[in-house]
Amino acid sequence: MLKLYGFAVSNYYNMVKLALLEKGLPFEEVTFYPTPTPESQAISPRGKVPVLGTDQGYINETMVILEYIESSQTGKPLLPIDPFERAQVLALAKEIELYIELPARACYGEAFFGTTVPEAIKEKTRAELLLGFAALGRHGKFAPYVAGDSLSVADAYFLYSVPLACAVGHKLFGVDFLAEMPAAKALLQRLEENPNVQKIAADKEAAMPAFLAMIAAKK
Amino acid sequence: MLKLYGFAVSNYYNMVKLALLEKGLPFEEVTFYPTPTPESQAISPRGKVPVLGTDQGYINETMVILEYIESSQTGKPLLPIDPFERAQVLALAKEIELYIELPARACYGEAFFGTTVPEAIKEKTRAELLLGFAALGRHGKFAPYVAGDSLSVADAYFLYSVPLACAVGHKLFGVDFLAEMPAAKALLQRLEENPNVQKIAADKEAAMPAFLAMIAAKK
Repeated sequence: MLKLYGFAVSNYYNMVKLALLEKGLPFEEVTFYPTPTPESQAISPRGKVPVLGTDQGYINETMVILEYIESSQTGKPLLPIDPFERAQVLALAKEIELYIELPARACYGEAFFGTTVPEAIKEKTRAELLLGFAALGRHGKFAPYVAGDSLSVADAYFLYSVPLACAVGHKLFGVDFLAEMPAAKALLQRLEENPNVQKIAADKEAAMPAFLAMIAAKK
Repeated sequence: MLKLYGFAVSNYYNMVKLALLEKGLPFEEVTFYPTPTPESQAISPRGKVPVLGTDQGYINETMVILEYIESSQTGKPLLPIDPFERAQVLALAKEIELYIELPARACYGEAFFGTTVPEAIKEKTRAELLLGFAALGRHGKFAPYVAGDSLSVADAYFLYSVPLACAVGHKLFGVDFLAEMPAAKALLQRLEENPNVQKIAADKEAAMPAFLAMIAAKK
């Protein structure tokens, strides 16, 4: 059986968890907080989550895991078969990751965990997020899903990146990045009604106290 | 015929160009400097290069383009067929992109183009590059190629990311990130003897004056 290594507070972990649940695949969740030890680094060389445990070994990196699941497992497709159509979905997911999630991530410490982020980094994040959301507005289909008429891996990236980036925008910059994207707001509402998304949110809430205690212990 | 949009100074452009040349595929190079105009944004929503032009439309994002080429075109394979083996190669490529290329990129301005990067960003880059190179040392096979015994897309990421990150390390931090990775240094030498790599380097050198003039005009 597939094993999902990581923790329920991680947004990348939840992207893969959503894919597994949507496909109806059996999997075991293994709580894994990476540490700089050989045992941990054998699972994740860079100390990241999630990691997928398979009969053949570990697979790192969320997008790689999502593509592996798509090509090796059964269940509802989350990527088109046609190479061009597939590329359109993957590009949207990648654009959300590179131009929204990663810039926002540089400010998660100040937005969510009480640390202070240097002004230079905040300014870089702000500029990149403005460009990233503008690009999503141009490229996203929202018909009603990010890449078209069915749920795809791009929606997993959207659901578990955009609200965090919006919180960064709200808390640190006083900006509503979705102000001119009503279709994106509507999609978030629709996704939040999905029973699998609700289960993931409940699991995240239950795991939050342990996660915050770990963060506090590290400070 | 496939069209490769971008410019020969871009390291991501050259990753795709190497794949096309190694596969022996016909393609046309289209010089494309993204601008914030509707015409340019119709090609690249976020204003990035490279973009692949196909009969069906444009494809953005280097990794997505590389996977599209692999699944839709003929020529020497640069990814394994087996989903698990393929995932290992893609994960290495992704780790080089996220944990080496992207942190280094935040300092390209100071390392290569005479601008000043704030200390906070340099410190973040330095810390991330140390972790990124350590992870590459653990995860890379270098046998002799990054992911094993044959050239793959991970080598394209390696070749067009690691020397730039090393230059950032040398110029800004006085650090040799490959000091304890002789196999990685040997692989760089081996790759630089590849005739396609040499052609790409010559094209880059020829395109550099126009690129620098454009950068200077923007300041």
